[in-house]
Amino acid sequence: MTTNQTDAQIANALNAVAGRENVSDIFFVACGGSYAHMLPNQYIVEREAKAIIGNALNAAEFKARAPKRLGKNSIVIACSHSGTTPETVEAVKIARAAGALTISLTHDLGSPLDRESEFTISYVHAPLTMSPIHSAAVLQRLTFGVLKAREGNTKADDFDKGLAAFPALAEKLVSDHQDKVAEFAETHKREAIIYTMASGPNFGQAYSFAICLLQEMQWVHSAAIHAGEYFHGPFEITDFDVPFIQLMGLGPSRAMDERALAFAQKYSKRVTVLDANDLGATSLPESVSEYLAPLVFSPVLRAYADKLSEAKGHPLTVRRYMWKMEY
Amino acid sequence: MTTNQTDAQIANALNAVAGRENVSDIFFVACGGSYAHMLPNQYIVEREAKAIIGNALNAAEFKARAPKRLGKNSIVIACSHSGTTPETVEAVKIARAAGALTISLTHDLGSPLDRESEFTISYVHAPLTMSPIHSAAVLQRLTFGVLKAREGNTKADDFDKGLAAFPALAEKLVSDHQDKVAEFAETHKREAIIYTMASGPNFGQAYSFAICLLQEMQWVHSAAIHAGEYFHGPFEITDFDVPFIQLMGLGPSRAMDERALAFAQKYSKRVTVLDANDLGATSLPESVSEYLAPLVFSPVLRAYADKLSEAKGHPLTVRRYMWKMEY
Repeated sequence: MTTNQTDAQIANALNAVAGRENVSDIFFVACGGSYAHMLPNQYIVEREAKAIIGNALNAAEFKARAPKRLGKNSIVIACSHSGTTPETVEAVKIARAAGALTISLTHDLGSPLDRESEFTISYVHAPLTMSPIHSAAVLQRLTFGVLKAREGNTKADDFDKGLAAFPALAEKLVSDHQDKVAEFAETHKREAIIYTMASGPNFGQAYSFAICLLQEMQWVHSAAIHAGEYFHGPFEITDFDVPFIQLMGLGPSRAMDERALAFAQKYSKRVTVLDANDLGATSLPESVSEYLAPLVFSPVLRAYADKLSEAKGHPLTVRRYMWKMEY
Repeated sequence: MTTNQTDAQIANALNAVAGRENVSDIFFVACGGSYAHMLPNQYIVEREAKAIIGNALNAAEFKARAPKRLGKNSIVIACSHSGTTPETVEAVKIARAAGALTISLTHDLGSPLDRESEFTISYVHAPLTMSPIHSAAVLQRLTFGVLKAREGNTKADDFDKGLAAFPALAEKLVSDHQDKVAEFAETHKREAIIYTMASGPNFGQAYSFAICLLQEMQWVHSAAIHAGEYFHGPFEITDFDVPFIQLMGLGPSRAMDERALAFAQKYSKRVTVLDANDLGATSLPESVSEYLAPLVFSPVLRAYADKLSEAKGHPLTVRRYMWKMEY
């Protein structure tokens, strides 16, 4: 798809959002890596919305909860790359039957998710870069678009301005980080476990790196630790040889990241830091820079995973179960 | 404290809930193990509430988000065992300044959390059992109480009836499980990593076992895997020698647990199953049995941790960082 196509699809969906009689809830529904992309959107709604509620849920959990509030005042934003994830397709069917406005992202127009959704938006998939038509960016454009249409939130324009700095910014970051990434890969290629840590709008990036890149694609044990939770349990596993990847965000959540980093660096010699301040995020519009930080981390983290997979001789495409059997 | 004291404190807080002009949100705010107890309450609100929103957040994350909706229509329910957790105390101050009704649980009346909160409820702390005045039970009584007072939800009485079956039920379960628990401890005492897995109202139990019992108190690497997310990444780390503890809940989330268990048992020889159906939960009132399941798991999981700590020779009370230094 092209920028024009995606932009038109977003405008079309937001037009329907503006036309609804009332909007009280946005449910962000997906699985795995797509679910991870939903998490910063709940964060945005909580930070920015006067009355609208944001709620990110795994699609099977959404079905189990069958939220009583779900109805004609709800928007359900779903995402499945293939458009075939059964839980996500089913969640959209449930939502639509309940009268909710359904807007889905998928890479595959014509897929079951596309067919079941009232509105569909397609996106580009190129993990080593970032642009306004990458899925993570499209989701946040939708969120700000809903808040603009329904509550007059004025940050959508700043957000779009910030996005315009990508993909040049992403390309530069990946290029600038080549040496650091190569060193990480060599020094971590034998690790059995690597923790990730983040907070606020960046927790989703830490989560997707842990479950998709490390557990799924590298068979490395992992867990995403919330930096605010670290001191209430997880920090006791910190030791000189325990590896962490710490994401340092922007805005009010950064204090959590700084506190966690100070401790982790004191007791572990294996802490890798990705700081949005060193990643060009400070050149972005200040009113939305905290929300853009996860989009900065995304391509850089992918570069880390790519190089780790090379060093391990374990391509990111290898699976032993996924897509290979019924489950 | 006694049952009468705790009951009176709950009634007092719910009286204030009934007297509010409007209630739109319940924020459940805490850290670590107390935060884990909040998660089933968000689940209950989503399943049961017609209009009220439930949102469980780590206390530092709550401060960073500074939810724009927070105000005089909000209830903030907080919990800190010692009553001194700075993030939780600060969250309550923020909430109260915003006009929210603040209700806190703490073991220590007279603590900072007690002093800062409009209403305080004390509870018994005895991890190997369960009763209507344990913190996890008190939180759910409060949640059903709010839904009864504000929306006429009728399940509070069933819930109280179900709770009356504890602590006799908990005592029997811990006693019945002695052999299974001892076998788990012997066969897992050298494990470097143990995953926990659950979904729905039981995810909080899996989470607290991972971060408090395993990471904090046993220095065993761990992560709580959401059973609905398992197939979208984490399941690729499953192998014959990778240990899982799978909680099997009741109600609509059970389908996720069953699907995850079927896969995990096929490819790992190290899956320990705790099934609410085998734990007497089916004798509880059906309308609320899914919500009571986490209260059934709690004492049994503690028995597992106790025995593991014995087998490892690593008491649950040992810490290397917590309470021993500034952080």
